[in-house]
Amino acid sequence: MKPGMPVQPVTRALVDRALALAPDTLPAEVRTLALQCILDTFGVMLAARDEPLVRLLADAAREEGGRQQATVLCDGLRASVAQAALCNGTLAHALDYDDVNLNINGHPSAVFLPALLALGESIDASGRDLLVAFVAGYELACRAGALVQPDHYARGFHSTATVGAFGAAMACSRLLGLDAARSGHALGIAGTRASGLKAMFGTDCKAYHAGLAAEDGVRAALLAQRGMSSRTDVLECRQGFAAALSNDFHPDRALVPDRWFIRDNLFKYHAACYGTHSTIECALRLRAEHALDPAAIDRIVIRVEKVNDGTCNIAWPESSHEAKFSLRFTAALALCGGDTGALDSYGSGHLADSRIRRLIERTEVELVEGCPTMFTQVAVTAGGREVRTEHDSGVPLSDLALQGSRLDAKFASLAGRVLGSRRAAELSSAIRSLEDVRVRDLVALCAPTD
Amino acid sequence: MKPGMPVQPVTRALVDRALALAPDTLPAEVRTLALQCILDTFGVMLAARDEPLVRLLADAAREEGGRQQATVLCDGLRASVAQAALCNGTLAHALDYDDVNLNINGHPSAVFLPALLALGESIDASGRDLLVAFVAGYELACRAGALVQPDHYARGFHSTATVGAFGAAMACSRLLGLDAARSGHALGIAGTRASGLKAMFGTDCKAYHAGLAAEDGVRAALLAQRGMSSRTDVLECRQGFAAALSNDFHPDRALVPDRWFIRDNLFKYHAACYGTHSTIECALRLRAEHALDPAAIDRIVIRVEKVNDGTCNIAWPESSHEAKFSLRFTAALALCGGDTGALDSYGSGHLADSRIRRLIERTEVELVEGCPTMFTQVAVTAGGREVRTEHDSGVPLSDLALQGSRLDAKFASLAGRVLGSRRAAELSSAIRSLEDVRVRDLVALCAPTD
Repeated sequence: MKPGMPVQPVTRALVDRALALAPDTLPAEVRTLALQCILDTFGVMLAARDEPLVRLLADAAREEGGRQQATVLCDGLRASVAQAALCNGTLAHALDYDDVNLNINGHPSAVFLPALLALGESIDASGRDLLVAFVAGYELACRAGALVQPDHYARGFHSTATVGAFGAAMACSRLLGLDAARSGHALGIAGTRASGLKAMFGTDCKAYHAGLAAEDGVRAALLAQRGMSSRTDVLECRQGFAAALSNDFHPDRALVPDRWFIRDNLFKYHAACYGTHSTIECALRLRAEHALDPAAIDRIVIRVEKVNDGTCNIAWPESSHEAKFSLRFTAALALCGGDTGALDSYGSGHLADSRIRRLIERTEVELVEGCPTMFTQVAVTAGGREVRTEHDSGVPLSDLALQGSRLDAKFASLAGRVLGSRRAAELSSAIRSLEDVRVRDLVALCAPTD
Repeated sequence: MKPGMPVQPVTRALVDRALALAPDTLPAEVRTLALQCILDTFGVMLAARDEPLVRLLADAAREEGGRQQATVLCDGLRASVAQAALCNGTLAHALDYDDVNLNINGHPSAVFLPALLALGESIDASGRDLLVAFVAGYELACRAGALVQPDHYARGFHSTATVGAFGAAMACSRLLGLDAARSGHALGIAGTRASGLKAMFGTDCKAYHAGLAAEDGVRAALLAQRGMSSRTDVLECRQGFAAALSNDFHPDRALVPDRWFIRDNLFKYHAACYGTHSTIECALRLRAEHALDPAAIDRIVIRVEKVNDGTCNIAWPESSHEAKFSLRFTAALALCGGDTGALDSYGSGHLADSRIRRLIERTEVELVEGCPTMFTQVAVTAGGREVRTEHDSGVPLSDLALQGSRLDAKFASLAGRVLGSRRAAELSSAIRSLEDVRVRDLVALCAPTD
């Protein structure tokens, strides 16, 4: 707690809000958005099935053993709830192609959905209960994020992991039917565990963080259910989460009434760090509008808010991981006509492409202060002429039907590759009528076909 | 990283130092101290066997299932390495009666030994290898602690958990025979997970933190062995552990040559928070030297460094947990002639004792700045006369033989209660000749007798 700041019972207020949600009174728009998040997360999980990191974690789970309570989606391994949450959370974030919410300043669904799938499968929960638990976790995490940002992220914490753990704990508490006091203990147990360093971007640990947050949330809710104690005011208490992990503390933003934070959800249509998306949009637009020839480009200037320097400003990426966190690489890829939505566009082929290397050499990144964090201006000089444009990826699409059809196409491409188009369509259809299916049905539809 | 601070390869230097240790060249004093730490930790683990929290965690592990790789000491449950490390780490810290090192600003052995026992049992390691791995982890953790203290602890992190995880990861990396690069990845994986809030003192989470750090260390080493990547400079890198979790950064202290930090190990002879020990020593001395009658005491003034306000200054403890973190309660207990080394002295009987409540009412705690953190001055006024004394529990006993005999007595009392005196003596003897036994032999000697 910073001196002089008001002590408001933030944690309890957020728990009460989460427990007050009811399946029948969710606004239609909120339901639609939640289903879009869930569909998109299934798509990116399925597409990541062969990622070496997830195989490694599944092998580690196999070595540990565990009761067959829930399914690891990458290879059908049946494992304990905690193991499945860890593996599937990592799976969901492995491609860095999952959704984003700037209130968290991170990735929401990659944490909450895997936690709920693992727990829901083990207790044979309904899709209806999963849906409301998902929204409960989602909203609480955004409010916890708003409480501690921007300093929490700026000082080095990967909010997907830290703030995400609160959302997963709340979602799982809700699915287990814990009361407010027990849910508060679950948040405390998860919150004292909240960790994850942004310095790890570009290594296996980044995706692992999402898995850890999912695992923490499940574990915390199960331990609270057994009666384990913690503080029930972890967010705001003296030397608590906000005080220790941030210099910001904004109870007013966390407790704002009548707002659905899921409305700010941002989906990814490019398979790279979200911080690069406005740069990619600018590059694609300039290429299309001015028929730019990459070989004729002499200079590229990318102007972004300086917070991006710590996330996606790797100058000379040397791996697929790093390419996704490089403003220079992603701009060059887009300007060269690469498919920024394709998973393999960030691999060794494009990393070694001399046209791309040439453009990276000619790119300057200018860091500015105070503009929106997802806002970019790009200027390209080619043949003596400068063209420029700007984009803000921090603003969600307002047309939910359009968003839905873009997401359907993304899902069909990602899931179809793995499940075949017929089964991908079955899964999509089951998610669309989530209230009528059970969690186990969803998981069964993801079983490997071979 | 703070601006202007030198970037030294701290993590790598500490790993190299840990890997350079050899069983045959450990100084005799270091070996003696390590064996004293190990003996003492077995004693406090055995004494905590019936703690409800540990039972709860063992039940949760049972529910999860897992291969029978290692033993949970509280009830003989065979579980996965990670589960055993979690349960036994929690067990070791459950009574808050385990050893302390002020360089970490926390409890070393409760984290490292359980991690090594779980891993060592699963791979059938020798006592000789365990001993050198223990020292490797111990020294690295103290140096990591020196790097980030005092601000790391002051801002709210429970260093036992955060700094402890590095020590456990190093100890386990060493026991697995990982090379410097793989050990560096293990430290990165553990470091990005480092968490634990001091705000949780007084709840189940405090002891759980030690278990989590032990589990993290084991898991990180095993994942690094499988090839998982992280940064190998997690301690010092930009937005790394030091930068995100502390405003202090002291590579000079972390990299000081020719020093064994285990020489600063402090053992507990009172079953309360170490921050209360100098107060207890003062109270015991005043009572003995001045034959104080508790009923005649009008006023008690305890003067301590203000850092203790956030740890052990609970004014009116209402539970056994809280009693152990109350300067007022522990002073009153000692002045009333209570046995401060007995586990049940902090229970409901003494909490309700009107003599103790009366003294608590008459106690003032004065917080001062800049004196040693474990230094206390106590002044007692009785019958119009003031007597005073002072003590610094931050200074270890220089007479290791005397320390050994005090620890033998503590172990015989704690372990004897559980194992019977004959088997307690066998275990003590096996630890004394650790180089000649296997880890499995030690664990077998802890089996429940009934």
